[in-house]
Amino acid sequence: MLKNETLHLSVDCVVFGYDDSGLKVLLINQKEANNEEVGQNPMSQLPGDLILIDEGLEAAAERVLFELTQLKGVYLKQFHAYGDPNRVKQLKDRAWLRSVRTQPEQRVITVGYFGLVSLQDHDPQPASFAGGVEWIDLQNVGPLAFDHNEILDGAMDALQNQLESHHISFELLPKKFTLSQLQSLYEVVLEKKFDKRNFRKNVKRMSHVVPLDEKQQGVMHKPAQLFSFNPDHLDD
Amino acid sequence: MLKNETLHLSVDCVVFGYDDSGLKVLLINQKEANNEEVGQNPMSQLPGDLILIDEGLEAAAERVLFELTQLKGVYLKQFHAYGDPNRVKQLKDRAWLRSVRTQPEQRVITVGYFGLVSLQDHDPQPASFAGGVEWIDLQNVGPLAFDHNEILDGAMDALQNQLESHHISFELLPKKFTLSQLQSLYEVVLEKKFDKRNFRKNVKRMSHVVPLDEKQQGVMHKPAQLFSFNPDHLDD
Repeated sequence: MLKNETLHLSVDCVVFGYDDSGLKVLLINQKEANNEEVGQNPMSQLPGDLILIDEGLEAAAERVLFELTQLKGVYLKQFHAYGDPNRVKQLKDRAWLRSVRTQPEQRVITVGYFGLVSLQDHDPQPASFAGGVEWIDLQNVGPLAFDHNEILDGAMDALQNQLESHHISFELLPKKFTLSQLQSLYEVVLEKKFDKRNFRKNVKRMSHVVPLDEKQQGVMHKPAQLFSFNPDHLDD
Repeated sequence: MLKNETLHLSVDCVVFGYDDSGLKVLLINQKEANNEEVGQNPMSQLPGDLILIDEGLEAAAERVLFELTQLKGVYLKQFHAYGDPNRVKQLKDRAWLRSVRTQPEQRVITVGYFGLVSLQDHDPQPASFAGGVEWIDLQNVGPLAFDHNEILDGAMDALQNQLESHHISFELLPKKFTLSQLQSLYEVVLEKKFDKRNFRKNVKRMSHVVPLDEKQQGVMHKPAQLFSFNPDHLDD
């Protein structure tokens, strides 16, 4: 039996950004790749690259994300490994692979990380290796390179599954937020509406959502109370 | 920068088995490995091996589990990839690696799958490659080879997190079960006690837990009603 002799491993980062206009994902595009074929038919993709020989997976995700997008200190969590033997062998991806990889024919298994960023607190700058970095509204994401649409779907599933139980919603909000902002975030991520009164009743039971002695700034009418997240007050 | 040239990828299976005596995990031991050094200091480990060059990850997990334990048709789910650069470089694991691998010094990244088996429905047979296959009570698991204790802990976390929301508890029960059996399983996996009356009230709301027109067999006193799981009746 032939066991894998020269297999490659990469990490791919699905970084979700959120602000009052909705949920976005961070994509890089290949348009400035040093390759004519690619230049004529550029695609968008998730920020990702091969790991280094002595690098841990999470360290690789942090490094690659920083190298490609200049984002640092992002909440990152592994969610799934993708290992279809043909995942980088589609025709659409060959030219780009030849332009960036020394062994473009190699099988690549990738480990997906999802990241969470409040767009009110961060503003990522594009880096030179990637053709460009952009926050794309989730509903406007088109066909991506490789199996990156599948990886994006997997990250979205992980985010939906973990939003409530893992207390990660706060990574997507500004440090001080209103209950309307928290409810909108839940509605956008979980793709359903909540009753305002029930939602607030449930939030009041969460001792880790702490009311502040502060109200919204710059609002003309009825500024709402601000809240913050205190992980020390987590019930469990 | 040195990117991974000859990295290896494996799958490891954490198969949980359950019966009325508790939760167990399937371990193989190295004692019959063709190597004197190992023979003097055998360790237990999770069933796992390198993937084949053209094999998907889930297919690899199924194959490896079957080759090492003869188990087939098991519910298997990927939960985490482990990639510490030193995870197979501890002294305790060198002799065994030399006895089974052509490149024992290679870095190995492993993808963990957890499996669920009702021990009232299955009886795994040991296979020839592994020294032996045994169901070990979770609380009796000692130090394992490599980082397999950490992988076991990760699988347990995944099982606890997914038990309720993913409707997987039924994989650990016989096809027909009593509500006492369902409650005991929840208590063992989630490591907490439930109030019998509340537990039953909650179960009655689950349309996928279907009461059967049948009672326990072979019980002297008050045979309990049997239930079965119907995935077609899942609410969401």
